[in-house]
Amino acid sequence: MLKVGTLWVCLITACATGCGVAAQATDPLPSWNDSTSKTAIVDFVTKVTQEGGADFVPGSERIATFDNDGTLWAEQPVYVQVAFAFDRVKALASQHPAWKQQQPFKGVLDGDMKAVAAAGERGLLEIIAATHAGNTTEEFETIVRDWISTARHPTTKRLYTEMVYQPMLELLTYLRAKGFKTFIVSGGGVEFMRPWAERVYGVAPERVVGSRATVKYERREGRPVLLRLPETDLVNDGAGKPVGIHQAIGRRPIAAFGNSDGDFEMLEWTTSGRGPRFGLLVHHTDAKREWAYDRESHIGALIRALDEAPTRGWTVVDMQRDWKAIYPFQK
Amino acid sequence: MLKVGTLWVCLITACATGCGVAAQATDPLPSWNDSTSKTAIVDFVTKVTQEGGADFVPGSERIATFDNDGTLWAEQPVYVQVAFAFDRVKALASQHPAWKQQQPFKGVLDGDMKAVAAAGERGLLEIIAATHAGNTTEEFETIVRDWISTARHPTTKRLYTEMVYQPMLELLTYLRAKGFKTFIVSGGGVEFMRPWAERVYGVAPERVVGSRATVKYERREGRPVLLRLPETDLVNDGAGKPVGIHQAIGRRPIAAFGNSDGDFEMLEWTTSGRGPRFGLLVHHTDAKREWAYDRESHIGALIRALDEAPTRGWTVVDMQRDWKAIYPFQK
Repeated sequence: MLKVGTLWVCLITACATGCGVAAQATDPLPSWNDSTSKTAIVDFVTKVTQEGGADFVPGSERIATFDNDGTLWAEQPVYVQVAFAFDRVKALASQHPAWKQQQPFKGVLDGDMKAVAAAGERGLLEIIAATHAGNTTEEFETIVRDWISTARHPTTKRLYTEMVYQPMLELLTYLRAKGFKTFIVSGGGVEFMRPWAERVYGVAPERVVGSRATVKYERREGRPVLLRLPETDLVNDGAGKPVGIHQAIGRRPIAAFGNSDGDFEMLEWTTSGRGPRFGLLVHHTDAKREWAYDRESHIGALIRALDEAPTRGWTVVDMQRDWKAIYPFQK
Repeated sequence: MLKVGTLWVCLITACATGCGVAAQATDPLPSWNDSTSKTAIVDFVTKVTQEGGADFVPGSERIATFDNDGTLWAEQPVYVQVAFAFDRVKALASQHPAWKQQQPFKGVLDGDMKAVAAAGERGLLEIIAATHAGNTTEEFETIVRDWISTARHPTTKRLYTEMVYQPMLELLTYLRAKGFKTFIVSGGGVEFMRPWAERVYGVAPERVVGSRATVKYERREGRPVLLRLPETDLVNDGAGKPVGIHQAIGRRPIAAFGNSDGDFEMLEWTTSGRGPRFGLLVHHTDAKREWAYDRESHIGALIRALDEAPTRGWTVVDMQRDWKAIYPFQK
């Protein structure tokens, strides 16, 4: 009986092993055209995972960090979190009658984006503060979860979670299959990403690093809650990204992926460590399938990082040239 | 040939599978006496890992958090990090001639612990600030790594990393084998623990949460560094623990392990969530093999948590009764 049992285990396992080998032989990055970008990625992964090789990196140290907006999903015409904040203004308007007369809230309610834009970054921060605080972490999570399951992109009419980049999903999966720990390190709010990042990117909440509000532990009706205060605890952007990485990960990444000057310091910090390092920028060059922008963009401006990429040895992905498909629904 | 190959895979796999079954049959917690504590642990782990069971928790949500001082390693007669800070005062004294006349530094240099104690908590914070800041994160890591590899406990003369609790090491391993993600959530400095936590506890740097100094990204001689400032960014103790957990993990743990009132809120936060929850306190009751202390102790005071443990359903480990061995060298 034991023998028969073992045989079944054998057959099942052999099949599984066989499938595994077959899967490995297929291209792990099918949505990437054969280009210098793809070659650079595969070469790097191959050398750091080659046991006994000069560039071998133990699994525990294979940290890869990914920006989110413009690197893993689309960020045009406005950051998704800004669209969320605008929808929150509308949802909360009845509780704030003064907003009808008060910019930038009035602009959001009237659909007058010029008025909102005129309020500048300060106006945007005002909107974020008014719509993102005062609730508990669990209440906020529910709000995000509900919103992201129905909200749609203004021009494509797709769910925002459908507007993730297929080649980057493949890259995340490929790296994890090669023993990497994949982290999101975004300028966006960490509590805005955690509710869906595992489902969409396969990145668990504890591997999402982002900007964050101050939270306070207190008791409400005898039950403990974490209250979200209208204070910023960390701006995880620019020089704040290596700080966020240090706080949350405690180890310098060996690979970093971004798309804007907000990712400059993350790539610089990552690629200036000892041993094999990899930096990659997604350059938005595809006006037809996505958007084309860099230096002049009001979102995701890419200037210094693009200028210095060649001397720093960073790989620049040309979306139009390098990616067969942009979104999963185009596969 | 393929058949032969498959057969080999079968034999190897069958052997491995057989070994796995055998290992599972042995006691995963051999240093725990059969007691209500051990039963409570095993029962909890069994029910949350039973697929299809009413209390099943998916692997991704199996978060377990462990305090460090007094929960995973000894904290008497002073916190290990305080011993480290005192040694840093001695190492840095030649650069600070004024310390010879200035308390609490003079007390440390003269070995006059009464004078140090007289300076109170404020004095201790002064010592920590003076010895823990002004260097880069990498410099500090090297200092910790060097110190921990040679510094010894004042009475046992053992390396501090030998004074970890064997039953807790087994518990960490057992939980990870059951698909748990094990985190350290300590009032101690995160940068003091990360350099050795993976080697000693099997807990990678990104799974260590602790108090932390503010760090700043800047360039030194053209190379980027993270500079440690003499400012506290988070006190990860008491009500700060759920905050640190939220920042770093983003999910409420389902199990938490502590030993003092500094862990009260972590256990409260953990065990007041929906679904199966587990809270455990290590009660230091063994004056012979370790130390016996709770309410009156100047370190690791355990008052409220001990009082409320029964009504909150927290398991209280009686070290003397429940643990066969305390340290690995007593196995």
